[in-house]
Amino acid sequence: MQKFDSFFKPEGIAIVGASRNPHKLGYGVVRNLKEYHYKGAIHPINKSATQILGLPCYTSVEAVPDPVDLAIIIVPAPVVPAIVERCGKRGIKHAIVISGGFGETGEEGLYLEKELKQIAEEQGINIIGPNCIGTIDTHTPVNTTFVAGMPDTGEIGFTSQSGAMVAAVIDWARAAGVGFSRIASLGNQVDVNETQIIEALRGDPHTKVITAYIEGIADGDAFMKTAYRAALEKPFVALKGGRGESGAKAVASHTGALAGSTQAYEASFRKCGVQMANTMEEMFDWARALAWQPLPKGNRVAVLTNAGGPAILAVDALEQHNLELASLTDKTKSYLRSRLPAAGSVNNPVDVLAGSGPGTYAVALDALLADQTVDAVVVIQAPQDWFLPASLAEVVGEVAGVHKKPVITSIMGRASVSEALNLLHKRKIPNVSFPERVASILQAMIKRQKWLISNHDSPILNASYDPDKAHDLASDNNWKSLLEEYDVSFPPEVEADSVNKAAKAANEMGYPVVLKLMSEAISHKSDMNGVQLGIQNTAEVEAAWYAIQQSANEAGADMRGVLVQKMLNSGQEVIVGIRRDEQFGPMILFGTGGTEVELFKDVETAIAPVNKTQALELIEATKAGRKLDGWRNLPEADKESVVEVILSLSQLASQLPEVDELEINPLYVFPKGEGALALDVRGALKGED
Amino acid sequence: MQKFDSFFKPEGIAIVGASRNPHKLGYGVVRNLKEYHYKGAIHPINKSATQILGLPCYTSVEAVPDPVDLAIIIVPAPVVPAIVERCGKRGIKHAIVISGGFGETGEEGLYLEKELKQIAEEQGINIIGPNCIGTIDTHTPVNTTFVAGMPDTGEIGFTSQSGAMVAAVIDWARAAGVGFSRIASLGNQVDVNETQIIEALRGDPHTKVITAYIEGIADGDAFMKTAYRAALEKPFVALKGGRGESGAKAVASHTGALAGSTQAYEASFRKCGVQMANTMEEMFDWARALAWQPLPKGNRVAVLTNAGGPAILAVDALEQHNLELASLTDKTKSYLRSRLPAAGSVNNPVDVLAGSGPGTYAVALDALLADQTVDAVVVIQAPQDWFLPASLAEVVGEVAGVHKKPVITSIMGRASVSEALNLLHKRKIPNVSFPERVASILQAMIKRQKWLISNHDSPILNASYDPDKAHDLASDNNWKSLLEEYDVSFPPEVEADSVNKAAKAANEMGYPVVLKLMSEAISHKSDMNGVQLGIQNTAEVEAAWYAIQQSANEAGADMRGVLVQKMLNSGQEVIVGIRRDEQFGPMILFGTGGTEVELFKDVETAIAPVNKTQALELIEATKAGRKLDGWRNLPEADKESVVEVILSLSQLASQLPEVDELEINPLYVFPKGEGALALDVRGALKGED
Repeated sequence: MQKFDSFFKPEGIAIVGASRNPHKLGYGVVRNLKEYHYKGAIHPINKSATQILGLPCYTSVEAVPDPVDLAIIIVPAPVVPAIVERCGKRGIKHAIVISGGFGETGEEGLYLEKELKQIAEEQGINIIGPNCIGTIDTHTPVNTTFVAGMPDTGEIGFTSQSGAMVAAVIDWARAAGVGFSRIASLGNQVDVNETQIIEALRGDPHTKVITAYIEGIADGDAFMKTAYRAALEKPFVALKGGRGESGAKAVASHTGALAGSTQAYEASFRKCGVQMANTMEEMFDWARALAWQPLPKGNRVAVLTNAGGPAILAVDALEQHNLELASLTDKTKSYLRSRLPAAGSVNNPVDVLAGSGPGTYAVALDALLADQTVDAVVVIQAPQDWFLPASLAEVVGEVAGVHKKPVITSIMGRASVSEALNLLHKRKIPNVSFPERVASILQAMIKRQKWLISNHDSPILNASYDPDKAHDLASDNNWKSLLEEYDVSFPPEVEADSVNKAAKAANEMGYPVVLKLMSEAISHKSDMNGVQLGIQNTAEVEAAWYAIQQSANEAGADMRGVLVQKMLNSGQEVIVGIRRDEQFGPMILFGTGGTEVELFKDVETAIAPVNKTQALELIEATKAGRKLDGWRNLPEADKESVVEVILSLSQLASQLPEVDELEINPLYVFPKGEGALALDVRGALKGED
Repeated sequence: MQKFDSFFKPEGIAIVGASRNPHKLGYGVVRNLKEYHYKGAIHPINKSATQILGLPCYTSVEAVPDPVDLAIIIVPAPVVPAIVERCGKRGIKHAIVISGGFGETGEEGLYLEKELKQIAEEQGINIIGPNCIGTIDTHTPVNTTFVAGMPDTGEIGFTSQSGAMVAAVIDWARAAGVGFSRIASLGNQVDVNETQIIEALRGDPHTKVITAYIEGIADGDAFMKTAYRAALEKPFVALKGGRGESGAKAVASHTGALAGSTQAYEASFRKCGVQMANTMEEMFDWARALAWQPLPKGNRVAVLTNAGGPAILAVDALEQHNLELASLTDKTKSYLRSRLPAAGSVNNPVDVLAGSGPGTYAVALDALLADQTVDAVVVIQAPQDWFLPASLAEVVGEVAGVHKKPVITSIMGRASVSEALNLLHKRKIPNVSFPERVASILQAMIKRQKWLISNHDSPILNASYDPDKAHDLASDNNWKSLLEEYDVSFPPEVEADSVNKAAKAANEMGYPVVLKLMSEAISHKSDMNGVQLGIQNTAEVEAAWYAIQQSANEAGADMRGVLVQKMLNSGQEVIVGIRRDEQFGPMILFGTGGTEVELFKDVETAIAPVNKTQALELIEATKAGRKLDGWRNLPEADKESVVEVILSLSQLASQLPEVDELEINPLYVFPKGEGALALDVRGALKGED
């Protein structure tokens, strides 16, 4: 028996607050248990009624006979703690508290919530809620909610931090052909939280895909561990509420959880293999396809259609989602040529024309699925009048079942195709009413496939460093030396207080060099000729020294000497850094550096620690990263060195928790094989601003 | 009587190719005319039948009695031209050719199509098709298609270059609560094209919104004139098929129209006030709201809900679409505080909680619509069990009708809310099943409102220029002088072949200056110290001259002299240019310049000519443009000068059609009031590469 099984397959249920009044929630719960065929014992508790919906009533929790392992509580909030205590004493170790009136209502409610929490701990009782809708398991079956309607049996597990979303989804799913295995509404999470339910969904054999509506999480670390383990076993799609600024504010007033930045949520989901959907519809579109169809091995898609327009819209959407149109083999094309109408198209998109029916579709679909250049097939049927859409549904389901490649259909329209949709559901072929939606679905499947085969091993810590020294350097804000401790290199530079020393330094580091005025008084050196670039030899060093001296004199500035720096040519500038999220801890950021960081927003983040694969993924998720592969007249840059810097920062972030922020901007990346140098670094310790 | 009225309100229809066989299209057409209550004369033509569906048959076009002004032709392609000729002679001046087998099938079909076109011209007959589905007018009513189903009467006019999209939309609309005024499927456009049908929709009093599925257009200029006139009168939403590379390829093989780049389509739609939707669903979401609800005056939205989660998703989506949450007045908040449950939220999103019903919604909605900080209201209802969604629909419709602000609902779910949806349809309140969809709808309404009040006047040509000289300069590829003719400025620069001349030039143009080696042999001047920056006075000019001379000597290069340029500080670099589209003619482009133009894709285009308002809109559509308003340590730049350059290029593009491409990159923009200078320009004449 799994933990929390009593929430989804209880042996007996006591309903505290059961009612005969059909307008009360306490009636709806009893009705749902009965109406949706719960087979265990149903024990309504009501002091004044003898029967509810034909079931005998009990006057108290203590009076309820065995078996009973779950209590559903729908009584006024102030009474709830006492009831829970009595449940615990009676030996009922699981309770769903539907009643509202707790933390969501203010001060007094928060106090009640604390009391409830304490009693739960004392009694060793697991509580879902309060202020929730309850749980559903379509396989048991059991429906502990008061919401009218029971979703179809299916493969999707869903947990939600909004009860309203659960109610809406139940209502919507019935019409949209989406089935569920388990649903859990979490309410105020006084005890059981989203992470624990995700673990329960992972353990449920009927759940093939996990979905979640998440506003906040209880504990970033625990979530990431559990989500990662779950995502290794099952596709896991989540919708995050409160991603924008206003939305986050609304969430903050709605839940008590640590906020966590949206970027950190995205990064943590990505790392754990949780796929973030943009809308509810997208979440269930993805979930259905992930539950029903095999994952594609690549991104080459064939489109099979009976009409040009819808296929063009599908192709546009595929391209927008980085999918490719498969270039069919000549064999496939000549085969199709021999089977399709003369005016049909055997190039992808393959158009069988309006005059072709299920037979031609079957033949063409089979050929496309057999073609090794095809990773997935989209089947589009624009409405026609001469065959039943259901027969196409049958044929597609049958042919698709023979191959191991995903098939998604768009049997268009709605009014005339309901039978076809039922058949597709039975055959586990996902269908969308307009073809554009297939693209995001296929993209999600490909991303899952890529994540599954990518390397998630924990990185090996390998930068040589002295922990005491590192902590000291950090506490001194000596970021440059700290980074050098972690094998990050800076450009060679030497301070010289005489022209001879400058020339010696330049000769040692090699030309060209730059000379910069060192002066207490002057900050904008370049405005007053205090910087001399492109110095090629000793003579030029001397000329530059005197030019700088003259400028300093003219400006009335002191001259402590010059900084001799190696002049850097043909590098690319990127930003690499560490940031900490209050929920998910240290993150590595990478992207386009310079002052335009925020304008172009070309910065991505990854939760630390990262391994080499993850460092590369982080780099490649940005435009700055793609530029490192060579761009226009820029040669390919030393991406390997950037990976090394990222791994160093990742290690530093783990080893020095006192470092709150660190930013190398720019990191100057030379052509392949020539390394990278940090030109500037700034950092901040925890508690600093 | 409007032109083309015979396609939508014919007095009598001859069906050439009418059939008794229910599996034939020629049967479907007669059935639809009869079943969907066409009141005019229906004349089936069939040599062997005496009656079809109870209607008397005729043996030939010539035998058909008056009234008859429209022929629907469903006979094999080779016979069509002759039939059309006979229709013309019989005095039938409008024909819908449903038959396929023309240009879409290849060589032979193309030949038939030409023949058909010629006969149509000879006979002065207007043809829709061939290879089309036909027309529908729900108000006449008439349905000339063979597709089962008739859309509800409504305000949306729809024309489509894909017959399949029409069939799909008819089927889908019946279930989605979308009604239509007129629909026209255009087929191969041998005669009547999309632009002419758009004009017909403009003239139709029942059409309140024009929608179009467009793959290509017949004539860019004519389309823009017609679309602009139409969009001034009615909202006009279009979906462009073939926006991506693969999609465009598929379109090319599907239609014969000039391609036109996707950017040009976007720019031309934007200029004409045509709103480009991303998906079919979005097109009709927008159209329905534009047809039914008043336009918002601004972008401040209030969200009224009975549950937190769905409101948070709505708020996230609103923010993504650049909409703001209205900050309600204290008056509204204290009023709401007195009416809402104690735990409800009176801050936007306003949460009446699950226990509130239509009454509370009515009171709150009324208060929000009366608040002057609110431009639009989104009403969300998560499913509950204790009142009928229909009663909320009634209340919202009634209260919204009193105010002049748009209201959009998301009565969530599907299975339980169909009656509510019918009522909302009757009340003309657009509803979406998940709240995220409201954001794109409101954004589209705001964009329409903005476009309507923006200035579309044709620009006044005012750059002084000499046409002969301009043509000469263009044909000499003398782009710099040509631009100077159009009042575009370049940085002062003087060629100097002696140190004295260099000093004199520098003194005249003012310091700081730059000296650059002029040499035939050397291209990478900066690599060999051939460029001296930041020269402040005569002495430094001399030092720089000799340093360059020495470098040239060392490199074994000749030295023709130096280029003395004014050194430019603190400017922002942008790209401004002209490009020509084969369909839409000259376009102005603006954006982030430099080598990263293509990486960041921060370039927008506008169809020339542009006026000042349009130039500003073009600028502000880019990140480069937003940067001109000041960014981090960058001061506000001289946007006015950029506008002037854009207006100059717009004028140049109109006056010099031989200029195919022209690009100022970078245009160097100084702080506000200090102008802008073109640093580099390249161009190409038509026919060059």
